[in-house]
Amino acid sequence: MSVYQPPLQSLRFLLNAVLRAPEALAEAGWEDLSADLFDEVLAQAGRLVTDRLLPLNLSGDEEGAAVVDGGVRTPAGFAAFWQIWRAGGWAGLAGDPAYGGQGMPAVLDTLVTEMLCAANLAFSITPGLTQGAIRALAAHGDAAIKGWCLPPMIAGEWTGAMALTEPQAGTDLGLLRARADPDPAGGFRLTGQKMFISAADHDWTDNLVHLVLARLPDAPPGTRGISLFVVPKRLADGARNGWSVLSVERKMGLHASPTCVVSYDGALGWLVGAPHRGLTAMFTMMNHERLFVGLQGVGVGECAAQSALAYAQERLQGRAPSESKGGGTDQPADPIIRHPDVRRMVLTARALTDAGRALAAWTALWLDRAEKSADPSLRQEAEDWAALLTPIIKAAGTDFGFEAAVLAQQVMGGHGYIRDNGVEQLVRDVRATQIYEGANGVQALDLVQRKLTLHGGRPLARLVAAVEAALADLAADPATAALAPPLRDGLERLRACAAWLTAAERGPRDAAAGASDLLRLAALVVYGWMWALMAVAAARRPAGYDPAFLDARVGLAGFFMERLLPETAALEARARGGDASLRGPGLAEDLAALQG
Amino acid sequence: MSVYQPPLQSLRFLLNAVLRAPEALAEAGWEDLSADLFDEVLAQAGRLVTDRLLPLNLSGDEEGAAVVDGGVRTPAGFAAFWQIWRAGGWAGLAGDPAYGGQGMPAVLDTLVTEMLCAANLAFSITPGLTQGAIRALAAHGDAAIKGWCLPPMIAGEWTGAMALTEPQAGTDLGLLRARADPDPAGGFRLTGQKMFISAADHDWTDNLVHLVLARLPDAPPGTRGISLFVVPKRLADGARNGWSVLSVERKMGLHASPTCVVSYDGALGWLVGAPHRGLTAMFTMMNHERLFVGLQGVGVGECAAQSALAYAQERLQGRAPSESKGGGTDQPADPIIRHPDVRRMVLTARALTDAGRALAAWTALWLDRAEKSADPSLRQEAEDWAALLTPIIKAAGTDFGFEAAVLAQQVMGGHGYIRDNGVEQLVRDVRATQIYEGANGVQALDLVQRKLTLHGGRPLARLVAAVEAALADLAADPATAALAPPLRDGLERLRACAAWLTAAERGPRDAAAGASDLLRLAALVVYGWMWALMAVAAARRPAGYDPAFLDARVGLAGFFMERLLPETAALEARARGGDASLRGPGLAEDLAALQG
Repeated sequence: MSVYQPPLQSLRFLLNAVLRAPEALAEAGWEDLSADLFDEVLAQAGRLVTDRLLPLNLSGDEEGAAVVDGGVRTPAGFAAFWQIWRAGGWAGLAGDPAYGGQGMPAVLDTLVTEMLCAANLAFSITPGLTQGAIRALAAHGDAAIKGWCLPPMIAGEWTGAMALTEPQAGTDLGLLRARADPDPAGGFRLTGQKMFISAADHDWTDNLVHLVLARLPDAPPGTRGISLFVVPKRLADGARNGWSVLSVERKMGLHASPTCVVSYDGALGWLVGAPHRGLTAMFTMMNHERLFVGLQGVGVGECAAQSALAYAQERLQGRAPSESKGGGTDQPADPIIRHPDVRRMVLTARALTDAGRALAAWTALWLDRAEKSADPSLRQEAEDWAALLTPIIKAAGTDFGFEAAVLAQQVMGGHGYIRDNGVEQLVRDVRATQIYEGANGVQALDLVQRKLTLHGGRPLARLVAAVEAALADLAADPATAALAPPLRDGLERLRACAAWLTAAERGPRDAAAGASDLLRLAALVVYGWMWALMAVAAARRPAGYDPAFLDARVGLAGFFMERLLPETAALEARARGGDASLRGPGLAEDLAALQG
Repeated sequence: MSVYQPPLQSLRFLLNAVLRAPEALAEAGWEDLSADLFDEVLAQAGRLVTDRLLPLNLSGDEEGAAVVDGGVRTPAGFAAFWQIWRAGGWAGLAGDPAYGGQGMPAVLDTLVTEMLCAANLAFSITPGLTQGAIRALAAHGDAAIKGWCLPPMIAGEWTGAMALTEPQAGTDLGLLRARADPDPAGGFRLTGQKMFISAADHDWTDNLVHLVLARLPDAPPGTRGISLFVVPKRLADGARNGWSVLSVERKMGLHASPTCVVSYDGALGWLVGAPHRGLTAMFTMMNHERLFVGLQGVGVGECAAQSALAYAQERLQGRAPSESKGGGTDQPADPIIRHPDVRRMVLTARALTDAGRALAAWTALWLDRAEKSADPSLRQEAEDWAALLTPIIKAAGTDFGFEAAVLAQQVMGGHGYIRDNGVEQLVRDVRATQIYEGANGVQALDLVQRKLTLHGGRPLARLVAAVEAALADLAADPATAALAPPLRDGLERLRACAAWLTAAERGPRDAAAGASDLLRLAALVVYGWMWALMAVAAARRPAGYDPAFLDARVGLAGFFMERLLPETAALEARARGGDASLRGPGLAEDLAALQG
C-alpha cells in the first residue's frame, strides 16, 4: 500500500513556473536546454525507477546485503538495475562531458535523484556516494587521478565510497588513526580499520574506489594531520587491492545497502590533494553528500505523502464532522480524508515535502549559475547560498522526511505498521538519514557556529532580503496577500534569534544550546519562503497546468503559513533559553544524578 | 548498549514524597500498606524483570512469534518467564482477593507494570490485556462468568485478549459484522473474522479467553447493536473451541507479540453484560488498556533515557564548548554529555519520561482512593480525573515515549541504528503504541469532543484548580519560584484554547481540526504540573534520598518549564487555525489536486 508515481506536474511547475530554470540557465551560459528536454528527461527517469527499481524496494529490504565469499552480495535485481541505469547514461547525467558525462545541470540531476531515492532509498546510496566522490576527485585530484578514475565513474563502471569513520572517531575525525605509508614503488600503503562505510563493496561492478582519510607518518595530530587517498578495489593489473570487508552491519533499515567494516592491510592508495589537507578535500564530497541526503529525505517524504493520501481517499471509516447535518452519502462511512485530523496529517506530509524539494532545486540552480559564469559576484552569491543552506537542506530534508513517513504510517493506522504495506520501511529507512553524513545536531552547529556569521553575516543577509522580496510579491497579489503576515513573523523571529545567539556577549555554549532549535526555526522560515515562491507562481496562472493543481498550491501555502509556521514562536523561546536552561540546579556536568 | 536498571529511587520518591501514597491510601480505607512494603515489592519486581525478562528482549525480536501446527509459538523463554511471573503472584498483584488476587493498589501495580514494559515491551502486551479483561469481566460479567474466569485469570493460568477489529471496522466499530447466534444448548455461536488481535493465542498457558464484539441476530445496525462475549480457547471438557488463528502479521516491531488474524467458525461464547450494550462493557477494558498503553510509552522512555545517558557519559568525541578556555582534561576528547545539544536530547528524554510516570501514578492513586471509599464526592472526583486524563496518558505517554526513543537513538549516532545495540528496537516497538488501542488522533477527539465539556466542564475545572494550587506552592518557595511563570503561561493557553475550541459558535470541524494540537498542549501543561509537584516535593528535602538526586529534580523541572513548555504557544496558534486552515483554496474535500 505504499504508493509512488513520479510527481511530474509538480516537477515541471517547480522548474519552469517557480524557478524559471531554462531562462536562468540560458542567462548563466548554459546552451541548448529547453523545458521540453527537461520534461522528457524527467519522464524517462520516472518511468525507469517506477517500473524497474520500485518493485525491488520491499524485496531488497527482506533479502538484505551480506558478505559472501569475501565480497558483498546485494539483493536480487540490484546489480541488474545498476546496469540498466548506467547503460542509459544516468550515472553521468550531470557529469563533465570532458570525461564522458552528459553535462546536464545540477537542478535537473537533483530532481532525477529525488525520484531514485523515492523509489528505493537503499539503492540510491551507492550512486549518491559516487557522485560526491566524482566531485571530490575532479576538484582535488591531479590530472593522472582524474584521467584514471573519472571516466569509469561517470560511466558507472566504477562506483565511489567514503571511508572516514573509525570506532573511536565518528563526528570527531581528529581522532582517526588509519595510517598511510609511502610505498617505494609509488603511492601509499594504507593500514587501519574503518566502520560504517556504506557501499564499500558490492556486486554491481568489477571495480570501485574508496576515498579514505588517513595519516601520513609525519602527520601532526588532530584534524590538520589528515590526508585523503583514493584506494581502488582492483589495481591496474586487475589484482585485488589489500583491503577487505570484515562484516556488514545489521541495521534498523536500509537493509539492501551494505554498511561495512573495512580492514585496510597495506592497501595501495594515491594521495588526493595536498598532504595533511585531506579534510578540506573530503568536504567537497561531504557537502555534496549533505545535499544528496537532504534529497533522500524529500524522496521518502514524497512516497509517504502519496501513500497517505491514497489510503485516506480509499479507506472508509466513521462519519466526518459536517457543518450541514444530514448531507450524507450512500456509503457506510466516509473516506477518512474528510476527517480534519487526517487531513492535517496528509497536508503536513505534502507541505513539508514540496518545500524541501523546492529548496534543494533552488540551491542546485545557484550551483549551476555559478558553474558556467565568470562573474565573481554571481559565484560569490552561489557560494553564500550553498554554505548557508546546505545544513538546512540536510537536516530539515531528513527531519521532515522522517516526520512525513511517521505521519503516513499514522494515517494508515495498524496497516501502516505491517511490513508488507511498505510505509513502515520508509520510516526505518529514512531514520538513518538524520544520523549519517553529519548527524542533524552537527548540521545545527555548523549553521550556528559557522554559517550565520560567515563573511560578516552576508549569507544570512541575502536570505533575509530574499524572503522580504517574496513577502512583497505575496502582498502584491490579492490571491496571496493573506499568506504574508505569518511568514513575516517567522522571519522576524529568525532574525532576532540569530542575532541573540551570535551576539558578542553570548558564550559558545549558548550558541550550541540553541543550535537545533535555531536550525528548525530557520528551516521553517526557508520552507515558508519556498511556499511563497510557489504560491506567487501559481497565482499567476501559468498555462499548461491543471487549474485545480494551481489552486491547491495556494491552498497548501496557506496551510503551511497558518499551521506549520507558528512553531517558530516556540523555537525562538527555546533557543533563547540558552545554556543556562541545560545547567540548572543539580544538573552537574556529567548529569550523574539525573535518574534514580 | 540499551541500558535498563529499575529506577527505584525515582519510584520511591514519587510514591512517598510526591504522591504520599501510603498516607492517601490509608485515608481512603486501605489497610496495612506501608512505604516499606511498596519498596520491597518494587525491588523484587525490578530484580525479576531485569534478571530474567530483559535478556529476552533482543532474542524475542529476532525470533518472533509464529503459527506452528495451528497454534501460536512465542519466542524461546517467554512461556518460561510467564510461569515465573505468575508463580510469584505478579499476574494477580492488583487482583481482587475474593478471586485469589493480592489486592494491592493500582498505583503500585502501575509502577510494576512500567518496569515490565521497560524490560520487554512485546512481552508486556499479554499481561496488560489480561488485566483489562479481568476488569471488564469483573464489572460486567454475571456471577457464573466471574466464578469461572476470574480465578484462573488472576492466577495467570489463563490470559485474556480483546477481539474488536475486522478488516472493514477499525476505529469505526459500528461497521463490524461478526455474528453471535444463540445455541440451543446454551451460550452463543460466534462466526466471523477478526484481525489485529494481539495475544489471541500463545504457548504460555493451556487456556485463554477472548472478549469478542459481535452482533446478535436481532441487533440494530451501528454501535448500538454490538454485544460482548467471552470466548475461551478450551471448553469445560478441555476440547478446543471453534476458532483458529489463520496467521500472525509481520510487523515493524513487537515481533515477539503475536498479532493474529482469527477466524471464528461457530465458536462457543457467553454474553457479558446486556445484549447490544457490548461497547459499554468493552470500554471498561479499553479504558484500562489506554492507561496501560500510556505506561508502555513511559517504560520505553525510561529505557531510552537511561541508554542515552549511559552512552553520552561514556562516548568521547570532540571538545565541548567551554566558557573557561584551557580547563581541559587529559582525555583525547570530552564525553558527549558535555555537548549542549546532546545534553538537550538526554534531558528531554528524561523530563518527558518522569512526568509521564508521575501522571500515570497520580491517576492510578485516584482510582485507588475511589475503590475503597463510600464518599460519592471522592468517587466523582476520581471519575472526573480518569475521564479527562485517560486520553492524555495514552497519547502523550506514547508520543513522548516515541520521541524519547528517537532522541536516544540520535544521541548514539550510527550505533543507535545498529540492531544489536537495542535502541532501534525501542523505536520500532514503541511506534505501535501510538497506533493501537485507539490511535492518538482518536484520543485527541475523545478529549476535545467529549472530555473537555463533560459535566459542564467539571473535570477541566478541576485540572485548572489543581495546576493553580501547584503554582501557588511553586511560588511560595524561593527554590522553585522561578518555575511558576512558564507553567502559568501554559495553563492560560490551555484554558483559552479549550474555551475557543468548545465555544458554541465553533463548528464540529473546528474542534476536530484542533484536537491533536489541543491534546499536546494539554499534555505539556499536565506534565509541567507533574514537574511542579516533583520540584516542590524535592525542595522540601525529604530524608532518605540522595541530595544530588533531589537537586536534579528541581533542575529537570526548570528544564521542562524553560525548554519544553514554550511549545504551548505554537500549539495554541495552530489549534486556533481551525478547520478553515485545512480547507483553503484548491483543497477540495477529497484533496484530489494535492499533488502533481
